[in-house]
Amino acid sequence: MTRILPPNVAEAQFERVLAAWSAEIGAPNVMSTAADLNGYRDPFAPGQAAAFAASAALRPASVDEVRAVLRIANQFRIPLWTVSTGRNFAYGGAAPRLGGSVVLDLQRMNRILEVSDTLAYALVEPGVSYFDLYAHLRNNGHKLWVDPPAAGWGSVVGNTLERGFGYTPYGDHAAHACGMEVVLANGDVVRTGMGGVDIGTSWQTFQAGYGPSFDAMFMQSNYGVVTKMGIWLMPAPPAYLLGEIQFQHEEDLETIVEILRPLRLNEIIRNNAVIEGGLRRAAGLTPRAQWYQGSGPMPEQAITAMLDKLQVGRWNLHFALYGTPELIDAQYAIVRHAFASVPQAKLTAALYNGDAQPTGGGDRNLAGIPAMTAFRMLDWRGGAGAHVDFSPVCPATGRDAMRQYMMVKARAAEYGFDYYGGFTAGQRHLNHIFAAIFDRDEPHQADMAGDLLRVLMSDARAAGYGEYRTHLAYMDFAAAQYSFNDGALLRLSETIKDALDPAGILSPGKQGVWPAAWRDRRGYT
Amino acid sequence: MTRILPPNVAEAQFERVLAAWSAEIGAPNVMSTAADLNGYRDPFAPGQAAAFAASAALRPASVDEVRAVLRIANQFRIPLWTVSTGRNFAYGGAAPRLGGSVVLDLQRMNRILEVSDTLAYALVEPGVSYFDLYAHLRNNGHKLWVDPPAAGWGSVVGNTLERGFGYTPYGDHAAHACGMEVVLANGDVVRTGMGGVDIGTSWQTFQAGYGPSFDAMFMQSNYGVVTKMGIWLMPAPPAYLLGEIQFQHEEDLETIVEILRPLRLNEIIRNNAVIEGGLRRAAGLTPRAQWYQGSGPMPEQAITAMLDKLQVGRWNLHFALYGTPELIDAQYAIVRHAFASVPQAKLTAALYNGDAQPTGGGDRNLAGIPAMTAFRMLDWRGGAGAHVDFSPVCPATGRDAMRQYMMVKARAAEYGFDYYGGFTAGQRHLNHIFAAIFDRDEPHQADMAGDLLRVLMSDARAAGYGEYRTHLAYMDFAAAQYSFNDGALLRLSETIKDALDPAGILSPGKQGVWPAAWRDRRGYT
Repeated sequence: MTRILPPNVAEAQFERVLAAWSAEIGAPNVMSTAADLNGYRDPFAPGQAAAFAASAALRPASVDEVRAVLRIANQFRIPLWTVSTGRNFAYGGAAPRLGGSVVLDLQRMNRILEVSDTLAYALVEPGVSYFDLYAHLRNNGHKLWVDPPAAGWGSVVGNTLERGFGYTPYGDHAAHACGMEVVLANGDVVRTGMGGVDIGTSWQTFQAGYGPSFDAMFMQSNYGVVTKMGIWLMPAPPAYLLGEIQFQHEEDLETIVEILRPLRLNEIIRNNAVIEGGLRRAAGLTPRAQWYQGSGPMPEQAITAMLDKLQVGRWNLHFALYGTPELIDAQYAIVRHAFASVPQAKLTAALYNGDAQPTGGGDRNLAGIPAMTAFRMLDWRGGAGAHVDFSPVCPATGRDAMRQYMMVKARAAEYGFDYYGGFTAGQRHLNHIFAAIFDRDEPHQADMAGDLLRVLMSDARAAGYGEYRTHLAYMDFAAAQYSFNDGALLRLSETIKDALDPAGILSPGKQGVWPAAWRDRRGYT
Repeated sequence: MTRILPPNVAEAQFERVLAAWSAEIGAPNVMSTAADLNGYRDPFAPGQAAAFAASAALRPASVDEVRAVLRIANQFRIPLWTVSTGRNFAYGGAAPRLGGSVVLDLQRMNRILEVSDTLAYALVEPGVSYFDLYAHLRNNGHKLWVDPPAAGWGSVVGNTLERGFGYTPYGDHAAHACGMEVVLANGDVVRTGMGGVDIGTSWQTFQAGYGPSFDAMFMQSNYGVVTKMGIWLMPAPPAYLLGEIQFQHEEDLETIVEILRPLRLNEIIRNNAVIEGGLRRAAGLTPRAQWYQGSGPMPEQAITAMLDKLQVGRWNLHFALYGTPELIDAQYAIVRHAFASVPQAKLTAALYNGDAQPTGGGDRNLAGIPAMTAFRMLDWRGGAGAHVDFSPVCPATGRDAMRQYMMVKARAAEYGFDYYGGFTAGQRHLNHIFAAIFDRDEPHQADMAGDLLRVLMSDARAAGYGEYRTHLAYMDFAAAQYSFNDGALLRLSETIKDALDPAGILSPGKQGVWPAAWRDRRGYT
C-alpha cells in the first residue's frame, strides 16, 4: 500500500514534521502506520474512501499541545483535519475532506471540567462522549439530563459543533451551547462570550457576551480548534410521559405536521418530536430479508404487509411531555384532542415518575439516556451495513413535508433504495433525514448511494431547499447551493477564513470553505 | 458654532463627498446643517456630548442606495455610524462613537416585507419600530405578538442587533432573530443562514444554515449594515395571566432569585420575569420630590415611607403565564406554592382570555403591547431628565444578585444617586440594569453619572462580572474588561474587522472594535 502524504510534501520532509510533532506531544500520539490510520478512514464511504485518506493522526492532550501542533503545521504548511472523537459516521467519520491531511484528534482531551447543579450546565473538553457525561452525572448524583443524539458514543463538543440534534427539549444542541475556548490557527487562545472576563462568573450562563458573538461562527467551521465548551443541561423533570402515535396512511404526513406545529410553537410539546417513517421504525425490529428478498426498493405491498405484521404505523410520531403530573395531564389532554380527528391514528403513552427509566431503546433518548440502538439500521439491508444521509431543512408545513417526502421516495426508488427516513420537529422547521443504506462491500451499491445523494441535493435545490449538513464528498456541492448573489455567503466565509488562517492549515474544505492555499481543490465530484 | 467635519477631512473635500452622496440618494436625504444634526446628538450624554457629534446624516431608502453610500465612503475614507432609527437613548441615541462620523440612518427603509401566520415570523427592514409592527399585526388580523422592549418606539432590527430584551417568552430578542440580509463594507450583499438558497423556502425558519453561522457576529458589531432581518413572533396564546408579587425586605432578593430560577429553568414561568426594585416601581407612579427634597440619595426612611404609602414592595416580581386556562391553573398553583414560604410576600394576578388586554402601562409589555411608559423614569428626579445605564450580566443565583445589588447601591449612594434598578430573568442569567438618573441641564449631575458608571464597571470587573452593553463613552472600557489572554477576544474581533472593512468605514469603535485606520482613537475617557 502506498504511503499517503500531505499534498505537496515529500516523504523525507513529512518524516521531519512527524518527528517535530513527536517531540511536542510524544511519539505514541503521532500515528502514521497503515494500521494506525485504519480508524481514521471513512467507515461508510459512498464511493472511493481513498480520496479522503489521512496521512497521519495526532492526539494532543492539552491546549498547549494543540498550540504546538498548530505552530509546526503553520511552519511546514501541513493541512490538519480536526475531529473531537470522529464518530460522525454517516458524514465521513474521522476522515479529512482534503486527502493527505493530518487528523487532529482531540479524544485524549476528555475532562469534564465543571458541572453546576444550580445553573444546570457542564463545561467539557472535546473528548467527552454523551455516554461519558451521562455516566458522570449519574455517578455523582447530579439531577441533570443530557440530550443524546442518535448514537450516544458521539462527542458532546463534536456533535454540538456539527449542529447535531437530539430528542428532548434541549434537542437543538447548538442552541444550548454556551461559551467556548478556541485555539486559533495562529495559536491564540480565545474564550468567547463572558469567558473573556478572565476571573468571570458567567461564562456558561449567558451566550452572547459583549460585542460581536462568535460561537456560531465556530460551528460547522474551520476557523479554530474548540478545546472547551459549555453545554446547558436540562434539570431532571419530576415526571415525564413518552407517547407514540401510529398513523396508517402515507398522506397522513401532511396532517401530522399541521397538527404538530402549533403544539410545538405553543410549547405544549417541548421536545424535538420525531415523525418516523414506517420502514425506519420496522428496521429497528427486524431485517429487510424477513419481508422481501428482491434487490430493488421494497414494493408497497411488502411494506404494508410488514407494517401490519409488526403493528407499526406508516408514520410514527414520538413525543414526550415533561413536568409535574398535573402539568403533564393538562398537556396530554391537549395533545390527545389535537390528534383525535385523524382516522385510525393509534396513541399509546406511558408516564414515568421521578427516576424511573424506560427500557425501550429508542424511547430512552427522549428520557435523556444515550444509546446505540440507531446502529440497528445497519442490519436492515444485510452485508456490511453503511449509510449516507440526505439532510434537507424543511419548513414546518404539511405541504413542504409531503413534497420533500414524495420527492425523496420517488428518487430513492429510482436508484434502488427504500425510503428510510423521518422528520425531527423544531418549532418552525423540520430536519428531514433520509438514509441511503447500502452494503459497503458492494461497490455498485455504494456508488448508487453516492449518485442518489447528489441527485437528491439537486432536486431539493430546485424546489428551494438546502441541506443543514452533509458528507465530506458533497460539502462543496451543498455549499454551492447557497448561491444567493453569486455565492456571497461563501465569499464571506472564505474572507474570514483567510484572515484567521492565512496558511490554510485548519480543516481545508470543511463545509465547502477553502483557504486560499487550497482553494483550487474545491470540487463537486 | 463650528462646523463638525469627519476626522482628517477638509471642509471643501467634505462638500464634495456630500455632493456625491446627494447625487446617489437625493439632496434632502443628506443632512448636514446644525438643525438637521440636532436629532443625531446623544440626548442623554453623561458628560460632553460634543465628543460624539456627527458631521452629517444620510437616509438611504434602499439596499442599492446603501451600497452607493458605502462606495463613496470607501473612496473618501469617511467613517459612517449605522443606526436603524437611533432610539437607543440611554446608550447614545443616534450619536456616533467616533466624533465627526456620518450617521447612516436606515429609518426610511421601513417595510414589513412578510408576515407568516403559519410559521409565526416577520421579515422586516431596520426602520420598522415595535409600534409599527404591532399596528401592522393588529390591523391585518394576524394572531401574533411582538415582544416589545421597554420603549416601543425602538426599531425591531436595531433593538435585536443590540441584544435588547423584552418581557414575554420571546424576550431574548437576539435568540429569536432568524436570517439577515447584510451589506458588507465592500458592497457585497449577503443573506445569512438559509437565505443563501436564493429561491429558498426556509430563511426565517431555521437559524443556523449550513457551514459557519454569522448572524450573532453581526450583533453589537460593525461588520456590516443589516438591511433585512427575520424575527420570530409568538402565536397569541388562548389566555394569559399577569402576576405581581411584592416583597417587603431588601434581603428577599436572594430568596426571590433562588425560587425563580428553577421555575424559569423548568419552563413554568416562560417569560422574562422582572424583579423590579421598589424605587423604580414607585418612580412609575410619582416623582421623587413628593417624598424627598434632598440632593443626595434618598434615605432609607424616606424610601420605606414611600413604598408603604404607595403600597409597593421593596422588590416587585412581575411574571406571566401563557396557555390554555387549564395549563395556566396548573402553572399558577406551582408558582403560588413556590413563593408561599416568603414572609409578607403579597401576590396579585389577573387572568386574561383571548384578545383581552390589560390597561396598566408596564403590564402591557408582558402581553406583547409596546408602550412608552418606561420614559416616566425621566420625571423621577425632575428637570431635563436623562439616564445612563449600567448593565452587568449576573449569574441567576441569589448570592450573585445580592452581591451586585449591594455593590451598586452603595456606590450609587456615594455618588449621590438612588438605586433605580432591577433584574430581568433569563434561565441561567439575570440582566441587571441600574439607571443613573440625572438632570442633563445640570453639568455636575451628568459628570457624576459618568464617573459613577466607570467606577461601577471597575467594581463589577473586580468581582468577575462583565457588561452586556454600554453607552458610547464606555465602549472601550467595557471591551477592555474582556481581558482573558491579554484581550484575545478583541484581537479576534479586530482581525475580522480588518478583513471585512479594510478602509475602516463602518462604525469605528463600536463596542470597542476599531478598524486599523482608526485604532489610535481607542480610549477610556
